[in-house]
Amino acid sequence: MGMRSVAVIGIGKTAFGAFPDRDLRSLAVEAGEKCLADAHVSPSEVEAFYLGNFAGPAFVDQNHIAPYVGSALGLTGVPCTRIEAACASSGAAFFQAVSAVGAGLYDLVLVSGVEKMTSRPTAKVAEILAGAGDCSGEVRVGATFPALFAMIARRHMYQYGTTREMLAAVAVKNHANGAKNPFAHMRKVITMEQALAGKPVSDPLTVFDCSLISDGAAAVMVAPLERAREFTGKPVKILGIAQTSDHVALDSKEDITTFRAVRLAAEKAYKMAGVTARDIEFAELHDCFTIAEIIATEDLEFVPKGEGGRYALEGRTCLKGERPVNPSGGLKSKGHPVGATGTGQICDVVAQLRGEAGELQVARHSIGLAQNLGGSGATAVVTILAAA
Amino acid sequence: MGMRSVAVIGIGKTAFGAFPDRDLRSLAVEAGEKCLADAHVSPSEVEAFYLGNFAGPAFVDQNHIAPYVGSALGLTGVPCTRIEAACASSGAAFFQAVSAVGAGLYDLVLVSGVEKMTSRPTAKVAEILAGAGDCSGEVRVGATFPALFAMIARRHMYQYGTTREMLAAVAVKNHANGAKNPFAHMRKVITMEQALAGKPVSDPLTVFDCSLISDGAAAVMVAPLERAREFTGKPVKILGIAQTSDHVALDSKEDITTFRAVRLAAEKAYKMAGVTARDIEFAELHDCFTIAEIIATEDLEFVPKGEGGRYALEGRTCLKGERPVNPSGGLKSKGHPVGATGTGQICDVVAQLRGEAGELQVARHSIGLAQNLGGSGATAVVTILAAA
Repeated sequence: MGMRSVAVIGIGKTAFGAFPDRDLRSLAVEAGEKCLADAHVSPSEVEAFYLGNFAGPAFVDQNHIAPYVGSALGLTGVPCTRIEAACASSGAAFFQAVSAVGAGLYDLVLVSGVEKMTSRPTAKVAEILAGAGDCSGEVRVGATFPALFAMIARRHMYQYGTTREMLAAVAVKNHANGAKNPFAHMRKVITMEQALAGKPVSDPLTVFDCSLISDGAAAVMVAPLERAREFTGKPVKILGIAQTSDHVALDSKEDITTFRAVRLAAEKAYKMAGVTARDIEFAELHDCFTIAEIIATEDLEFVPKGEGGRYALEGRTCLKGERPVNPSGGLKSKGHPVGATGTGQICDVVAQLRGEAGELQVARHSIGLAQNLGGSGATAVVTILAAA
Repeated sequence: MGMRSVAVIGIGKTAFGAFPDRDLRSLAVEAGEKCLADAHVSPSEVEAFYLGNFAGPAFVDQNHIAPYVGSALGLTGVPCTRIEAACASSGAAFFQAVSAVGAGLYDLVLVSGVEKMTSRPTAKVAEILAGAGDCSGEVRVGATFPALFAMIARRHMYQYGTTREMLAAVAVKNHANGAKNPFAHMRKVITMEQALAGKPVSDPLTVFDCSLISDGAAAVMVAPLERAREFTGKPVKILGIAQTSDHVALDSKEDITTFRAVRLAAEKAYKMAGVTARDIEFAELHDCFTIAEIIATEDLEFVPKGEGGRYALEGRTCLKGERPVNPSGGLKSKGHPVGATGTGQICDVVAQLRGEAGELQVARHSIGLAQNLGGSGATAVVTILAAA
């Protein structure tokens, strides 16, 4: 996707968390300004702005969000475009930006993601999130996202022998990582015993299997690789990227233990990058629920189908394991401000590739992958990045 | 914007109106299927899908709308991307599609717009529409869109001597056109006396100055011009297109009698097309309020600043006038299903260029323009099209 190589030349994130005194715009502006500074780019140089946001109108009554944020960053007169693709909103925005720069439409594009969720009570948040499902079908009959992923988990257990311990292993690992991440929402180590004793949310998922409701923003600056060193000493190259889609309703899918859109996006991204799963040294995966991380490791071919649970339980995806998964703490511990999650993952992968991940730095960090999932798999974005 | 010429090879629209028995998806699918048929393209050939929608989550509880509609059209495995830019949502989606095809990312792209508004009571609709304004400022203090455009109209009257008769002339003209449009929401001729005696909405605007609350969808297929004749005998070439942005809040603007984003988009689009305003034979303009059409004719340089009101009153923009504006009936009479308006305008201009506009066919129809506005001017998209 794209005829010239594209680089990430700057990143900027807010902390993820519950910030009652911060509004959507101030979060997005903070991330955007940090990114502009990191990329040494002034607002007047930015040629297009893509903003991923899932549900600003429902969470904070604000729509038309791209020029709303863009103008506050000093970006007017250029296309400011909001992309909505459920939890993959800013992954999809990033795909648009990379495609546009790759194709030669622009040189300097700012892409950002933001969500302000904690202004609504939890029951209302669950209702808003359900908008990413099929409201004429599964949602109408009462399925929330924890319920949908509980069905997925139950089927995965039935079909592949996945256990509660395997799910809990994902939670324990991601909490251990997130505890070391100064930008994480929940910096708390948990034990396997605690994870297994979590309060039930939707059987077999407990509170420790579910990601967090968070506020936050994350921004990325992309540019042609050939110009990257004008702006940064540590450019990161986008080796491969793909966005794909599938049915929204779970009952439209042939096999709910795999996400077809993720498999297809991975296939395209690996092909574009000229690499295989074996080459991926670490990854930020979309663990909206623990089962989703397990399935992602299978769909991305890190392990054969059905072996994702054991892969996690054996510790092979830990920070010091053979292929760290979610060194940032993932959505589970870092937080999941829906619209910011995709660009947040890119920021985290880029920080690792630059060797700037501090206590969370992985040992091998020359090539990493980010996988962003919308809803129960109707949108998928897979990106493969490498130090340039 | 784009390195190769792009053509519209197919169009498809639903009627605009209040359809209590139709849901968002069925409207979008109808327009999409008509467009696929008109373009002689099968779903499996479509390489990307852009969907403009303003407020599906608020109007019908459905978010994640691009794969929701795309999968129902048989489009899976390709990027299905929702664009939200207030009332310019599908104009912005069209800009993305044209840019992507122009840059060589794809050959066949379907772009669509949809909104299902009449499922909510009018007061709720006004509240949802207000989400396109600045909710931390103007909206918080009670300004709805009729109020914002009333301020714009009042200032235009003060500064340029624009009169109630001039506003009413726009309404009378657009109702006359819409009465002949089988796809229009309100097919009713009104007299100048009726227009002037309209019930007040927000002074000086009456009910006849305001566009309609409608359901509807419209779709367009774009392809490289060099391939257009594989699909259609009547390709339409995109001569120029631009999307720009500005501040969302009215009080952030220096002069509220002009839309800076429109002026800039027009300048870019004219330059890309290699034409001037003089060359535009007819136009579909964003008459969300009558004053908006008057200002658009000024911002697009059809007339000098301040003369848009007289231009309308003198009948020069009528169907049989020197340069017909809104031969379709415009948002005022055709209807304004927000997310569908941008692609709807493109469909209407293309039908004119093909000579297929029936009773509404304009005399000179070799080059036309569409102008789509988001909110009170924070997003603008201007497109210039010509028979190829």
